[in-house]
Amino acid sequence: MTTSATPPQPKARDGRPTREAILRASARLMHLHGYHATSLDDVLRESGVGKGNFYHYFKSKEDLGHAILDRLVTALLEGTVDPCFSGGGLSDIRCFLDRLVESLRQRNCVGGCALGNLASELSDVHEGFRRRLAEVFCAWRERLTRSLAEAQTRGEVREDCRPETVAHFLVASLEGAILMSKVAKDIGVMEQCVGELKRYLTVYERPHPERLS
Amino acid sequence: MTTSATPPQPKARDGRPTREAILRASARLMHLHGYHATSLDDVLRESGVGKGNFYHYFKSKEDLGHAILDRLVTALLEGTVDPCFSGGGLSDIRCFLDRLVESLRQRNCVGGCALGNLASELSDVHEGFRRRLAEVFCAWRERLTRSLAEAQTRGEVREDCRPETVAHFLVASLEGAILMSKVAKDIGVMEQCVGELKRYLTVYERPHPERLS
Repeated sequence: MTTSATPPQPKARDGRPTREAILRASARLMHLHGYHATSLDDVLRESGVGKGNFYHYFKSKEDLGHAILDRLVTALLEGTVDPCFSGGGLSDIRCFLDRLVESLRQRNCVGGCALGNLASELSDVHEGFRRRLAEVFCAWRERLTRSLAEAQTRGEVREDCRPETVAHFLVASLEGAILMSKVAKDIGVMEQCVGELKRYLTVYERPHPERLS
Repeated sequence: MTTSATPPQPKARDGRPTREAILRASARLMHLHGYHATSLDDVLRESGVGKGNFYHYFKSKEDLGHAILDRLVTALLEGTVDPCFSGGGLSDIRCFLDRLVESLRQRNCVGGCALGNLASELSDVHEGFRRRLAEVFCAWRERLTRSLAEAQTRGEVREDCRPETVAHFLVASLEGAILMSKVAKDIGVMEQCVGELKRYLTVYERPHPERLS
């Protein structure tokens, strides 16, 4: 199948706009099987898009990989982080932790974190993806850092808390907890880890009477 | 190359006993590239062992994968965990955390955790490896659980600490921290995460005057 005098947004076999169909199919495949184990043929078969049409939207599999990363970080920030964040400091962060547990429970711990999987697979063998993944995790951490810094300004969080360091630890611990839940196929692992992360946050929480007004 | 009237322990090109040469070469390749991306031909080329000789020691690539997992968990427990553990409770755990930081620093954050990488790659696509990996992480957690339980018996750790839950969290957080250091290629990430894990442990630490004698 090749592109000819196609309309600006041709449809794939299932009727979705082509670019979206390619992204959805390839993200689904790579989430389970990884970047290298997902071939272009797999993507074409899964999306019902022809090779010519694929190259109309993506220069290469690498280009597709970067588009998937953009999509993943947008989904994480806009779909999971932002809905919890309303200037509430530690309660926002606790809400976000609970949301991650529910998301993993709904998926029966299958798939793990798509970003974490790609980070594990690609960070030592593809410098371009490593740099992009580092930026993606940085964007995630920045949301948490900002929220912690605001809570610190309001006096909810102690002075000896370094928001950026805590954000580093939260993101890393969550990535590890998601991975260990995926190995154990047991949501109880995630629940226990999130419970301990909440205990950890109490280290920096200023008791109510001490808070600045 | 095929096996003929070989001595019980034939040598590979570099003089190492053959089974050991295969294990070393394949563990090194899989650590960086993953299980699926490492072909049997890659292993034979890297180890200098012939195909016939390979099948003298391993029934299949999967059989090799399990032998590598055995080797990895032995190296982790006997090489990194046990030397720190001498019945010292939390100080043993802190020693182990510092040892992991040094190990990662020496490798310039390259490779990440070989067990974590395999867990990320294989847990959703190979049930046999998933089960074995779950056992491996369980063995690691058991060492930490035992140490925490002993420290609790001595009164060094508070009563509300659940050793198994804390061990789950420690292993998960360390896996995440190693992964995030691999993405950032920055040992500072690991140092920050280990610093926060030590802060977390203080939640359960009983102040000295309260300890049981």
